[in-house]
Amino acid sequence: MSERERIALLSTLFASNVPVGIGDDAAVLEGGLVWTVDAQVDGTHFDRAWLSWSDVGWRSFMAAASDLAAMNAAPIGALSALVLDPTVDDAALEALARGQADAARTVGAPIVGGNLARGRETSITTTLLGRASRPALRSGAHLGDGVWLAGFVGRAATGLAALRDGALADPRCIDAWRRPRALVGLSLDDASAAIDVSDGLALDASHIAEASGVQLVLDEASLRAIDPAITLEAMLHGGEDYALVATSSRNLPGFVRIGAVEEGHGVALRTAAGVIPIPPRGFDHFAT
Amino acid sequence: MSERERIALLSTLFASNVPVGIGDDAAVLEGGLVWTVDAQVDGTHFDRAWLSWSDVGWRSFMAAASDLAAMNAAPIGALSALVLDPTVDDAALEALARGQADAARTVGAPIVGGNLARGRETSITTTLLGRASRPALRSGAHLGDGVWLAGFVGRAATGLAALRDGALADPRCIDAWRRPRALVGLSLDDASAAIDVSDGLALDASHIAEASGVQLVLDEASLRAIDPAITLEAMLHGGEDYALVATSSRNLPGFVRIGAVEEGHGVALRTAAGVIPIPPRGFDHFAT
Repeated sequence: MSERERIALLSTLFASNVPVGIGDDAAVLEGGLVWTVDAQVDGTHFDRAWLSWSDVGWRSFMAAASDLAAMNAAPIGALSALVLDPTVDDAALEALARGQADAARTVGAPIVGGNLARGRETSITTTLLGRASRPALRSGAHLGDGVWLAGFVGRAATGLAALRDGALADPRCIDAWRRPRALVGLSLDDASAAIDVSDGLALDASHIAEASGVQLVLDEASLRAIDPAITLEAMLHGGEDYALVATSSRNLPGFVRIGAVEEGHGVALRTAAGVIPIPPRGFDHFAT
Repeated sequence: MSERERIALLSTLFASNVPVGIGDDAAVLEGGLVWTVDAQVDGTHFDRAWLSWSDVGWRSFMAAASDLAAMNAAPIGALSALVLDPTVDDAALEALARGQADAARTVGAPIVGGNLARGRETSITTTLLGRASRPALRSGAHLGDGVWLAGFVGRAATGLAALRDGALADPRCIDAWRRPRALVGLSLDDASAAIDVSDGLALDASHIAEASGVQLVLDEASLRAIDPAITLEAMLHGGEDYALVATSSRNLPGFVRIGAVEEGHGVALRTAAGVIPIPPRGFDHFAT
């Protein structure tokens, strides 16, 4: 089974109508409580070759906080569950926790508890609770809505590629990858649908398209204008920026318009040469 | 640093007054929301030699649910974050999730979301949210209160020892270890303090003693009367039963009185020969 099929299986077994997904998993409970969990595993989700322990703590927290931001929720608090391998010494743990605590303060989601366990592989599981008077879902995009983007896409992937290649890179790109900032606090009250961009703009936008039964047509010129130094490839398929993409019939303050909701399915790119479908490539942990 | 010292470090860094602990970590938030997370790591918290994947799912869920029970909270829901190593095939995942789902139904805590990730080591992190009008804490035990126990202690350790030794065992002991049942729904409204017995009665009771600044004196005869076939050693130091121990000046329905709160510190045993201190032995993942 692919990861997608595995998630479908779990949804069936748990007999729940709430989305169970990767990265941007958030459940809406009574009273507008929004609840999300995200796990970052050493070697799968982060590579310590280019990250300090403090970076690892920061970005794992921001990855989880980004899910709340995408649901239009204000944070209440967080729990941190750490599985630590024996090489994580006391100094490493302290740096890791400082990174988490700094991120928690930055987004206003105090860490109120957690769990410590021993293992052979280090992982950081962060769960956040928030509240939303108008939770933003993936399924509400309407024909004629605009597609809107907050934050930058492609920078983190560009930064990571430069680190891997030993190339010179724009410090903003390195920083985007090492120290992403979840866009908590940006209002999505007027959004018809929203998601955070953790796995790449094309793939994450395709989740809105599928859940809403529409096509999201992105505008090449609008994308290129945002960040001329970043390749279109990185913008469409680079992950881990934790930008927000939303649909709305109105202007969304803090967002830039990058396309429109049209009839059809999937995600496409409007270029000078016409409209081209974009394959929703992304990272599937379980693909064979 | 010991695990205890590491937890103290995290509490300081996270600048939180909410207890951060092992196993029975629960935070109390606005409106009586009670929130807990527990991780079970393959090889550390469970041994697949004697457990089916369904057992692993069940008991990991119950371990987390037990923390809610100890806080006197009624469950609202749960999130499940799975890190799966490559040997966990689709059939194993399905069995694991069925075990979780069965446990969730049993305690009335629907699994409303989660996260799937790949790793080299399998772990199951369960977070539960509940609500308590009167949350039970560790710190409220008063001099003169009785010490009360619900459920059985020592059975799980006895069952596990029999499995390891290839010995004949009471099926109730095997079942206690493989399929523990969190005591969700038992009222602790009249308890002055409570904790669940995950690491052993003596160790968990010592957390109440320390937080409340008192001594818990357990009565040997009362303990032996509960379960004559179980050794006192297993009753005092065996973990993973998920019984509840509480203190109260009143009778607690569903509980048996096993001792009294007295002046002093730590945990002691009242025997025919006098009162003997019990060392709070337990499992410290990080002890050197």
